[in-house]
Amino acid sequence: MADLHPLKRQLGDRLITDREVMAAYAHDTSRVSPEGTPLALVRAERTEDVAAALSWAHTHGVPVSVRGAGTGLTGGANAYNGGLIVSLADMTDIIEIDRENRTATVQAGVITAELDAHARTVGLFFPPDPASARTCTVGGNIATNAGGLRCVAHGVTNDSIAALVVVLADGRVMRTGSRTRKNVVGYDLTSLFVGSEGTLGVVTEATVRLKPVPPGTPRTFRASFDTLEDAGRAVTAIVNGAAQPEVLELMDALSVEIIESFHPSGLTVPAGAMLVGQTVGLDAAAKAEAITATCRATGATDTEISESDSLLEARRLSNPALNARGLKISCDVGVPVAALADVFHGIAEISARHDKRVSTVAHAGDGNLHSTVESPDTPEGIAEADAVIDDITKLAISLGGTISGEHGIGSVKRHELPWQLDEAALDVQRAIKAALDPRGILTPGRAI
Amino acid sequence: MADLHPLKRQLGDRLITDREVMAAYAHDTSRVSPEGTPLALVRAERTEDVAAALSWAHTHGVPVSVRGAGTGLTGGANAYNGGLIVSLADMTDIIEIDRENRTATVQAGVITAELDAHARTVGLFFPPDPASARTCTVGGNIATNAGGLRCVAHGVTNDSIAALVVVLADGRVMRTGSRTRKNVVGYDLTSLFVGSEGTLGVVTEATVRLKPVPPGTPRTFRASFDTLEDAGRAVTAIVNGAAQPEVLELMDALSVEIIESFHPSGLTVPAGAMLVGQTVGLDAAAKAEAITATCRATGATDTEISESDSLLEARRLSNPALNARGLKISCDVGVPVAALADVFHGIAEISARHDKRVSTVAHAGDGNLHSTVESPDTPEGIAEADAVIDDITKLAISLGGTISGEHGIGSVKRHELPWQLDEAALDVQRAIKAALDPRGILTPGRAI
Ligand SMILES: Cc1cc2nc3c(=O)[nH]c(=O)nc-3n(C[C@H](O)[C@H](O)[C@H](O)COP(=O)(O)OP(=O)(O)OC[C@H]3O[C@@H](n4cnc5c(N)ncnc54)[C@H](O)[C@@H]3O)c2cc1C
Ligand SMILES: Cc1cc2nc3c(=O)[nH]c(=O)nc-3n(C[C@H](O)[C@H](O)[C@H](O)COP(=O)(O)OP(=O)(O)OC[C@H]3O[C@@H](n4cnc5c(N)ncnc54)[C@H](O)[C@@H]3O)c2cc1C
Repeated sequence: MADLHPLKRQLGDRLITDREVMAAYAHDTSRVSPEGTPLALVRAERTEDVAAALSWAHTHGVPVSVRGAGTGLTGGANAYNGGLIVSLADMTDIIEIDRENRTATVQAGVITAELDAHARTVGLFFPPDPASARTCTVGGNIATNAGGLRCVAHGVTNDSIAALVVVLADGRVMRTGSRTRKNVVGYDLTSLFVGSEGTLGVVTEATVRLKPVPPGTPRTFRASFDTLEDAGRAVTAIVNGAAQPEVLELMDALSVEIIESFHPSGLTVPAGAMLVGQTVGLDAAAKAEAITATCRATGATDTEISESDSLLEARRLSNPALNARGLKISCDVGVPVAALADVFHGIAEISARHDKRVSTVAHAGDGNLHSTVESPDTPEGIAEADAVIDDITKLAISLGGTISGEHGIGSVKRHELPWQLDEAALDVQRAIKAALDPRGILTPGRAI
Repeated sequence: MADLHPLKRQLGDRLITDREVMAAYAHDTSRVSPEGTPLALVRAERTEDVAAALSWAHTHGVPVSVRGAGTGLTGGANAYNGGLIVSLADMTDIIEIDRENRTATVQAGVITAELDAHARTVGLFFPPDPASARTCTVGGNIATNAGGLRCVAHGVTNDSIAALVVVLADGRVMRTGSRTRKNVVGYDLTSLFVGSEGTLGVVTEATVRLKPVPPGTPRTFRASFDTLEDAGRAVTAIVNGAAQPEVLELMDALSVEIIESFHPSGLTVPAGAMLVGQTVGLDAAAKAEAITATCRATGATDTEISESDSLLEARRLSNPALNARGLKISCDVGVPVAALADVFHGIAEISARHDKRVSTVAHAGDGNLHSTVESPDTPEGIAEADAVIDDITKLAISLGGTISGEHGIGSVKRHELPWQLDEAALDVQRAIKAALDPRGILTPGRAI
């Protein structure tokens, strides 16, 4: 076993070997279990702590798992047996908000919603807003290139990242990117590290781009449909319309039922599906009118506009509501938005063929779907649910889609990689990994 | 010398060894000369041609230069002595426009403005619009992550690229990316190849994102200032204001003079600088009013709004106008927008210290400046001009800026890389290059 003493001397209290403390850092929110008992936990407080940890792990060939808040859904942050856990959760400094250049520089462990709240004190906001924003970290968002509700208007996390401080596998510290809006200086290392799920380096600091809070009162809209396909067609029409939403989400009937029974808030279960969304700006009301009109023209049976965002709050509860029912076998596929009606049609067929109930919520404006399978929590039930997810995933790919829109691959979806990527792309990923982490200590066996 | 016969058998007429024909493909628009006489030119018509060429070059260790239209400004596409030129200029198919998903799939040699014109026939447009749009290729834009006039509103080329077909150094063909709006599946290879200046692979096909043409008549606005610093402050204020421009460009007095004498169009030379820009959408007029009001509040002496875009046409002539005077020693630095007044102040100081006239045009809304030095075309004059550019570049970096906003590094700016990138970042770039092009045949000795 590798000798921890030199690391202990460098890190003191920030190196922890207490089993109970470590247990809380050993897994994420997915259904995958940690691979075993970790050797030690580093609760980093600064970049140098991470550098010391990786340098030590590199020297001793110890596998490292990297952890923000552990809200990940793919097992990416789970501990390795005999491995080191590097936690960024204590690196919570908001170092600078630069109002005129609309950037913020933060440590990786800052909670996403806290950064956003801080930016709002100067009239700006942080666009990425995964439904987990109140608990996940900015570093975790970067490592997974997280999505969220506002992506339809503002893109994914990568679209908001200007520059990073990264600790490489051997402990060296590197800066990527620039505060400028344009920068063509060597390879785009920032985008390479965004979405790399802890396999290429540990992000310790980030300079992110903020946007001005739109003036006026946002409007929340709802439209109910008799069928999922109708709702899918409405989304395609909205996305191609003149009035653009800030948020455009979908919940099918079963999802609404599950959310409503978890946290009753008076949602009426639609026959097929419900779109909920938001418009912002001084013309928020007019845009909401235009969008609900489009919904009615594409088959909505009932629409509503309000100034309260309780409908979006309900949508954000979908993950906890599913978890409360023990439902964790789900997908994160994406399709081009014009294929939404087709993918919903196909999911219904798959559900019928397997004789399993499937509930679907979607970041509909981005064509990003989370379908969850109802199945008993037995080895057999899990295998059956996995088979449904595999079929939905292959369907999405056949429609020009992707196996993961926002959660990443982790250890859960690695078997799906060859469904989407060709041999050459798989090889190139491995070559980059080998070049940057030759000893393979960083989050080994995951993501690629 | 490597035996060309096997390649000739595969490519037939598309392999050319005629010196005069080759000469036209041996250099770009920069002041750098080709490194010598190339061995052969491949005028590729399809991905397989490029694959055959690279596979041959890889086997024989022959250096390859990659060329779109040769409008590059950094020597990136220049031929190597004894090397192969791979030209994409004949790969001009627009393969598909997908209106509902707002994407276009094109071969790499399509001219940027032609893709844009084609998209407009279905109400969409291609956001990247370098001033060279009527001659440069989409592949060249991707390889340089080109900017342009509309970046202030739509970002750089990378923001419009969904997926690529790339031929790797050894001739293997790889697909990257996805048509979906979100995709977290392994590393972001698309962004890695965008901006890699022909050093990691040859892009043969791209799926790009289009946007809907805004309704209404665009408005062009102008504001003249007595000093460059005032104009810089106005830009910072505009970018932080509620009314956002589609285009926001700056020309200093000397630039206006140079453009006007190249192509007289009645431009009044301002005392200090002129901002020209455009607003779009149904509220274009109101936004132009708001922006010119901001300009007057920050010191503009004179403002104007019109429906003609002749002012922007004038701005697009800046590069040819400078070339016509034999002025090619310029920079492409970027600074955070709030640093514009400071960088202009510093440039004036540098100009006075070196006793050289400097003209500056800028994609001002992005903080991206092109300053050009007036200096005799003698070895001494060139060395003096280079010294001015070096000082301006170091100034930009000291303000949190970048050595290249949009033109890339090529062979012209390689000595500047360590001014911006740390040792670890330089190392990582080299490691990636070695992993993907182990024999170092693709655009060797440039960009990184
Ligand atoms: C209720 C709920 C709702 C959710 N909603 C969304 C949603 O709408 N959109 C969405 O995209 N995701 C969503 N998620 C998933 C999850 O919140 C995101 O993936 C989030 O970005 C993870 O952040 P974290 O700090 O918890 O990271 P962790 O779970 O700790 O780690 C996630 C991955 O990133 C790596 N990592 C973490 N920090 C770093 C770092 N600093 N440097 C390098 N690697 C690092 C880890 O190794 C791991 O591979 C949801 C999860 C839950 C539980
Ligand atoms: C008048 C004028 C105005 C300009 N204005 C702007 C501007 O506003 N903004 C801006 O960003 N640039 C501008 N430029 C620079 C230039 O037009 C851009 O860099 C453009 O993207 C180059 O495209 P190209 O097809 O001419 O590429 P080339 O000059 O042929 O090549 C440029 C680089 O890309 C590589 N390359 C080309 N095609 C491929 C491919 N298919 N695969 C891999 N590598 C490839 C080459 O090897 C080289 O390194 C201007 C140039 C001129 C002459």
